[in-house]
Amino acid sequence: MAFSLLTRQLTASLQQNLRLTTTGCRYVSKTATKTESEFEYDAPSMKTPVPGPKSKELLRQLGDIQNVGAVHFFCNYEESKGNYLVDADGNRMLDAYTQISSIPIGYNHPALMKVLTNPNNMSAFVNRAALGILPPDNFPEKLVESLLSITPSGMSRVQTMSCGSCSNENAFKTMFILYRNKERGYNGPSEEDIGTCMINQSPGCPELSILSFMGAFHGRTLGCLATTHSKPIHKLDIPTFDWPVAPFPKLQYPLEEFVRENAQEEARCLEEAEDLIVKWRQKGKPVAGIVIEPIQAEGGDNHASPDFFSKLRNIARKHGCAFHVDEVQTGAGATGKFWAHEHWGLDDPADIVSFSKKMLTGGYFHKDELMPEKPYRIFNTWMGDPSKNLFLAEVLNVIRRENLLEEVTRSGKALLNGLYALQAQYPHILSRARGQGTFCAVDARDDAIRDSILIKTRNKGAFLGSCGERSIRFRPALVFKEYHVHQLLNILNDVLAEHK
Amino acid sequence: MAFSLLTRQLTASLQQNLRLTTTGCRYVSKTATKTESEFEYDAPSMKTPVPGPKSKELLRQLGDIQNVGAVHFFCNYEESKGNYLVDADGNRMLDAYTQISSIPIGYNHPALMKVLTNPNNMSAFVNRAALGILPPDNFPEKLVESLLSITPSGMSRVQTMSCGSCSNENAFKTMFILYRNKERGYNGPSEEDIGTCMINQSPGCPELSILSFMGAFHGRTLGCLATTHSKPIHKLDIPTFDWPVAPFPKLQYPLEEFVRENAQEEARCLEEAEDLIVKWRQKGKPVAGIVIEPIQAEGGDNHASPDFFSKLRNIARKHGCAFHVDEVQTGAGATGKFWAHEHWGLDDPADIVSFSKKMLTGGYFHKDELMPEKPYRIFNTWMGDPSKNLFLAEVLNVIRRENLLEEVTRSGKALLNGLYALQAQYPHILSRARGQGTFCAVDARDDAIRDSILIKTRNKGAFLGSCGERSIRFRPALVFKEYHVHQLLNILNDVLAEHK
Repeated sequence: MAFSLLTRQLTASLQQNLRLTTTGCRYVSKTATKTESEFEYDAPSMKTPVPGPKSKELLRQLGDIQNVGAVHFFCNYEESKGNYLVDADGNRMLDAYTQISSIPIGYNHPALMKVLTNPNNMSAFVNRAALGILPPDNFPEKLVESLLSITPSGMSRVQTMSCGSCSNENAFKTMFILYRNKERGYNGPSEEDIGTCMINQSPGCPELSILSFMGAFHGRTLGCLATTHSKPIHKLDIPTFDWPVAPFPKLQYPLEEFVRENAQEEARCLEEAEDLIVKWRQKGKPVAGIVIEPIQAEGGDNHASPDFFSKLRNIARKHGCAFHVDEVQTGAGATGKFWAHEHWGLDDPADIVSFSKKMLTGGYFHKDELMPEKPYRIFNTWMGDPSKNLFLAEVLNVIRRENLLEEVTRSGKALLNGLYALQAQYPHILSRARGQGTFCAVDARDDAIRDSILIKTRNKGAFLGSCGERSIRFRPALVFKEYHVHQLLNILNDVLAEHK
Repeated sequence: MAFSLLTRQLTASLQQNLRLTTTGCRYVSKTATKTESEFEYDAPSMKTPVPGPKSKELLRQLGDIQNVGAVHFFCNYEESKGNYLVDADGNRMLDAYTQISSIPIGYNHPALMKVLTNPNNMSAFVNRAALGILPPDNFPEKLVESLLSITPSGMSRVQTMSCGSCSNENAFKTMFILYRNKERGYNGPSEEDIGTCMINQSPGCPELSILSFMGAFHGRTLGCLATTHSKPIHKLDIPTFDWPVAPFPKLQYPLEEFVRENAQEEARCLEEAEDLIVKWRQKGKPVAGIVIEPIQAEGGDNHASPDFFSKLRNIARKHGCAFHVDEVQTGAGATGKFWAHEHWGLDDPADIVSFSKKMLTGGYFHKDELMPEKPYRIFNTWMGDPSKNLFLAEVLNVIRRENLLEEVTRSGKALLNGLYALQAQYPHILSRARGQGTFCAVDARDDAIRDSILIKTRNKGAFLGSCGERSIRFRPALVFKEYHVHQLLNILNDVLAEHK
């Protein structure tokens, strides 16, 4: 095990809880020299169990205003730096969850601080433009500099939005509009279309559907929620659409060892998906689009092969369904490529790719034919937030300057190898280690053990998330280096040893 | 006409297009001394028709990336100040549309600049917290200082969200959850509920509905869109829910002159709304909630009386429907009260009140019983944006310090009286002047004349919006003073004179 060399030394230093006993340079020396992340801390430092007394008091206060059942603890974001999140009680944790996978380059990155304090940028923060009607004069230039520099293959258009759900909702609308435009032969709507749509009736509001996958997560607004099937708590009691839900492959890991079995499972799911498309067309609710995540995240870090996605993309093409790849969680580098779908190696991977989270702004790329033919069809007050575009442009600069995709690939390899080693060492606790880049997960025996591991890990100074029924998900920032991986694995090792 | 005294003088100065001929102090002397708005310009200043050559070039560039059919012109937000929006060609316009009613206290307000440059606030901008799981340690305090200081009557809870649509989507979900909880007698869901919800089937995803009103606008995501009925372009081609749509009163203006006729019209609409609730219950799609705007904005600035809202609120109570007042556009002071529903004079005006736009953050207030009983039922990655809360807290301070609600009432009176005078002077062009505070509108004879007036007004230095089929809507910031009203009316007068 690559990390075992450091285990004893680091464990000792963590137990002593003294920041200076582990000097930063020991690890920094292993990394590229051009990094800006020297500003961060060296190691976790725990003062109280988490949540500590201050977080508990704040929980009580916030509980008078909101349901706080999901709050882990309160944070001191001023003191948080790089990969280390500091809480209200002064506990400093190595953060491998990053605000549900939405902090791209760590806390208080100096480059982002400069964006904020640059006087030229002030007006973008203070005056939020309605981008659809009155964009700032630097808006086209900023789009070219930022979003258009990372356009997925085959696409040339991008629409910004505020968040992931909003991006997916509008991506769905775009696919519905395209479908109806094709049906009408690109003629304008009929009087009947116009009249009926105002009172929620067809044909103006047609009975079209989106095919999604069991285990998927695409958001929680009503359109998105109709395609989300990860946990009942998201969907219970909310009216929805009668849209088809295909099985997502349940693969065996490591993928290399189960090639034949997994190919069979994928073939089964593809067949079922195609059957559903036919069936829903016959039902009078044709599938206008297929939406899928490259890796199902919230649903349990479920992977599928490039071959699966390639064949699904062909099924979409064959049946005239738009193909929407939801990269809200997988996008922006965590898999070692900027977009996770790049791992498929396709020239024409999708018709529409949505993003948010680490991209800081929501939005979606799309092909020309998905551009609405008229204004105000895809529209809302803000259409994103120019200040988030400024941050994104700088995040992209940092990713390039610091070669963070390579870094992620290197750290990801160390992390996945470490998880393989841990599950070999603790086979009664861990299984199914899997991942791409640092976008990794491992399953615990059951949800109770998983939750217990997460709490103990947190109390030892590493913050992780959960997903699916019993998975631990790793979602570090792109600046998570190999030595952070080692810190994390050491802590996990200690926790698992206690579970023995 | 109060403003006619200034007409000739101002018109001359505008024609000369010289900023210094109209000295600011002439108007400032009419206003309170404590204002911070001395930093703004004195008057419009036009250099080119709008859009000018630079905006046209930028339109061409952006057109390669997005549909730009809704873009009016590009803005120089650095140079914009107070009530004056400066475009890419250096034209300076008096802004009475304010980014679709979403700039509360004018451009680059010094108080908001201070918020941005305050070092204590930097981390809120640079590290966007996932508020539902890891709120900043000052979050409860900031909520108390800002949102809880403006809680609508009868409510004690608030949930922040990113935008208006997201706020309404989650408000709807909250009402559905409450309805089902009541139906189940607050017992947990059945196995059947859990199983069926995952595949979009009832009873887990029940066939509940929201009653909305013809002409309403509540957003464009699929749940919101099912309650939006202002224009076909928003709804065409998008699948929706079979939810009931009641008529919204079509009142005659001025309201004081048509009390009897309007009361009859309101009675008709209330009866129809109640009938629909009964009918949809019989159809097996019971109405879990009623959603309504205090003034239908996008739908054409349609007003209704306090008596109408009071009776509708009673109908909701009688039939066990939650009552959701959508204050996304009407809230935050533009009607002269902080919430437009305060004009109804009810102790128990609503169960849920949503907001966004001038509030800078989205969200909704609600009663205790609408608080979800479990975590993650109402949830998303960001749950708002802490940096917007910081701006909102300061906006509220400015509103109080500068008595902006009184200012709005004063300016609104001048504006509405001016519109009455204009429609008396140009009865063949204008009619149905109406408003509350500065939240005013007037109808043109048809949409072509309306659009022509808006373009000419813009070219003379005042920027206005449209709504409904042929209405001009006035949505100035809260710092729009009487002398801004006079400038605006003078320009409108000039434009209407040309239309004679």
